[in-house]
Amino acid sequence: MSSRSIRIGLCGFGVVGQGVFDHLNKKRKALGALLGADMSVTRIAVREKGKKRDVAVDEGIITSDPISIATDPEIDIVCELMGGTNTAREVTVAALKAGKIVVTANKALLCDHGKELLSIAQQYGGHVLFEASVAGGIPVIKAIREGLVINDFSSIYGILNGTCNYILTRMANEGLSYQEILVEAKELGYAEADESLDVDGIDAAHKAVVLAYLAHGKWVDFKNVRLQGIKEVSQEDILFAKDNGYAVKLIAVVNRERGGKALHVSVLPTLVERRSSLGSVDGVFNAVSIHGDVVGETVYIGPGAGRHATASAVISDIVDAAKLLIFGGPEGRFPFLDSAPKNGGGIDIARPDEIHSRYYVRLVVMDQPGVMAEIASILASHKVSLASVTQKEVPEKAERASLIITTHLTTEEAILRAVADLEGLTILEEKPFCMPIGTIS
Amino acid sequence: MSSRSIRIGLCGFGVVGQGVFDHLNKKRKALGALLGADMSVTRIAVREKGKKRDVAVDEGIITSDPISIATDPEIDIVCELMGGTNTAREVTVAALKAGKIVVTANKALLCDHGKELLSIAQQYGGHVLFEASVAGGIPVIKAIREGLVINDFSSIYGILNGTCNYILTRMANEGLSYQEILVEAKELGYAEADESLDVDGIDAAHKAVVLAYLAHGKWVDFKNVRLQGIKEVSQEDILFAKDNGYAVKLIAVVNRERGGKALHVSVLPTLVERRSSLGSVDGVFNAVSIHGDVVGETVYIGPGAGRHATASAVISDIVDAAKLLIFGGPEGRFPFLDSAPKNGGGIDIARPDEIHSRYYVRLVVMDQPGVMAEIASILASHKVSLASVTQKEVPEKAERASLIITTHLTTEEAILRAVADLEGLTILEEKPFCMPIGTIS
Repeated sequence: MSSRSIRIGLCGFGVVGQGVFDHLNKKRKALGALLGADMSVTRIAVREKGKKRDVAVDEGIITSDPISIATDPEIDIVCELMGGTNTAREVTVAALKAGKIVVTANKALLCDHGKELLSIAQQYGGHVLFEASVAGGIPVIKAIREGLVINDFSSIYGILNGTCNYILTRMANEGLSYQEILVEAKELGYAEADESLDVDGIDAAHKAVVLAYLAHGKWVDFKNVRLQGIKEVSQEDILFAKDNGYAVKLIAVVNRERGGKALHVSVLPTLVERRSSLGSVDGVFNAVSIHGDVVGETVYIGPGAGRHATASAVISDIVDAAKLLIFGGPEGRFPFLDSAPKNGGGIDIARPDEIHSRYYVRLVVMDQPGVMAEIASILASHKVSLASVTQKEVPEKAERASLIITTHLTTEEAILRAVADLEGLTILEEKPFCMPIGTIS
Repeated sequence: MSSRSIRIGLCGFGVVGQGVFDHLNKKRKALGALLGADMSVTRIAVREKGKKRDVAVDEGIITSDPISIATDPEIDIVCELMGGTNTAREVTVAALKAGKIVVTANKALLCDHGKELLSIAQQYGGHVLFEASVAGGIPVIKAIREGLVINDFSSIYGILNGTCNYILTRMANEGLSYQEILVEAKELGYAEADESLDVDGIDAAHKAVVLAYLAHGKWVDFKNVRLQGIKEVSQEDILFAKDNGYAVKLIAVVNRERGGKALHVSVLPTLVERRSSLGSVDGVFNAVSIHGDVVGETVYIGPGAGRHATASAVISDIVDAAKLLIFGGPEGRFPFLDSAPKNGGGIDIARPDEIHSRYYVRLVVMDQPGVMAEIASILASHKVSLASVTQKEVPEKAERASLIITTHLTTEEAILRAVADLEGLTILEEKPFCMPIGTIS
């Protein structure tokens, strides 16, 4: 075995940081034998020194200054596990400018600053590795980047947020409302105190942006991701799904449109077939379905978050980083780690009229004559064709009724305009709820 | 871009070989940009020169002598896609002794000669890469080797043979017998003219041996794989499965027993929960469920065979091989590519008394008094405890009846002995059919 030492600095020592530290220590010998080099965490930056932790650490290696780790010439690999996008960016930039390899699980950071960070890495001969940023412990980034390297990716669909999938699964299994499940999910630790990053789809959108970059080499601006969370999903939607062989899932989509020239990235509640690869994935699990032009569809399912699963992914990046340091060739760098395999230069963002799907629309309307006629005429004016209309029988004296419409294939532009027109109707008692049906393309 | 050229020799130019050739050519420019080197197929060995093929090839690069490619100093990477274990072994050994990297999809070759081949590779500074040998286009070898590198694998379950899964799925969907589906599957090209490699579980067992090596570093002798194919699976078994929330699948198992010190590899028809990750995988698809001590369960689903899916995996190995050639460090080799991450040195093969499962036993018995008493007493004598007994009501004059028994948790040793004793009963009209229930551990 070589006597080479690989020295890792952890910036951030919360749940994931402690997991990485713990698992690296426990398997230090096996990893050393694998690499022919000793790997160890030699410095750790924490927010609060002296805090009680789950793992025992020599206080001498702890600092409250992460930048000092990023710039420490004795550190080879910097693990950014702090979260947030301000200090995390400063630390990552400082480490890259010092020529180090940065391993991060931070999808928000990548979404907001990925382009800049990879460009700095390239300039200074470093790398940014981020297997843990999408789908937690599932090695889906390695699959896209290496295992499926010959493929172009016409579409990628993902359940990328475990909290949302947990809530939707329990809503379906127990017939409870979003609010009821959320309260319990928080008590159980399946949802954060501030749940909005998760339930509003923001976290999933960050991950979709990372996937889009990996698959197509283009950093899509977050504002170009059409985004809706799960707050408006009701028991009526869940019941309709069950009755019709579907499940409601929060689905991230990364699709090529316009003959491959335009990219469509969205995160939306979606009716997916219950028996499909994503429709049957329940609970906190994540799943990614990848359609490659050579291989066809491959599907990856597993834990999308949590101390151990995330640590597993972070450590796979650390080992890859160590390989680069030990074996890295000319100028010590692998060009394909710094650039996505595909050239995203000429790709546009798809326009709403280029995005095709069937849609589900739920309307809460006054129970009075002429309602259906008004709705139907608005849909017709946008050339949206009805596939089904369901109104459950209501009691004689009820003043409102839920009307559920499914459409034939139409465009996102047509359905959004139609829904906007429907919103203007005085017969509507609530904002309409609309979601795509099946996979969107 | 560097002016370096990577020259690939294809040995074997059937369905997969032509797929590899075709896709490499079509994406030559993109791969070149990725690697900073031009990759091309410069020589091809065929069985029969002048044969009509799906892809156009310059006849000048074709030979009928694969060894001449294996030893050609102008060739960097040798793709062994011939199948079989004789010439394939000679070609692989010759290429490795010439210091080349060999990419193969040949699970039979690896199962029979993997230990020798990897040792020769190590000795001569070459490599053997074999992503396509297990689960076709699904990058599951890369997942085990790299993406899940920190994990020890307590158990791996796989649907590794698409032909068997296709036949079992159609038996379940259409209520037809094994024989009826097999005939059609052959006509449709989903089963080979000689189906035994597939339906007897041999192909799946070869793959299980490769997975066991990857996960545990030990080459398990093929004769130590407990193996049963799908020929004896009847509609009665399929119906029992449906009625009780299961599906019958041919499941490959790679499990650690005896506190991790013993390895259990088997390929058996198995009752798996319909709603489980493998139970819902239908048709020609393959699926692998991997349990890692750090990450938990991750599942990989996709096409396990076919020209394009297999080519996708072969090409991912070719690209990895090219990276090794271009960037490979000290002595041009990555040690962890030649050895599994785990040290299998001290691992035994698990004994039947160490393997625990629930079991399903179908007995065709004479319809006469005392039958159940005889059977129950044999099971009791082996301490096999009954969980359920089902005998569908038979007409008054029927002379035989099917008796389906499920057991509580017991050992493989106990159930095999009990079944052997049952076979000796004169009241039995047919050989008993027995399979594990659920995941085996």
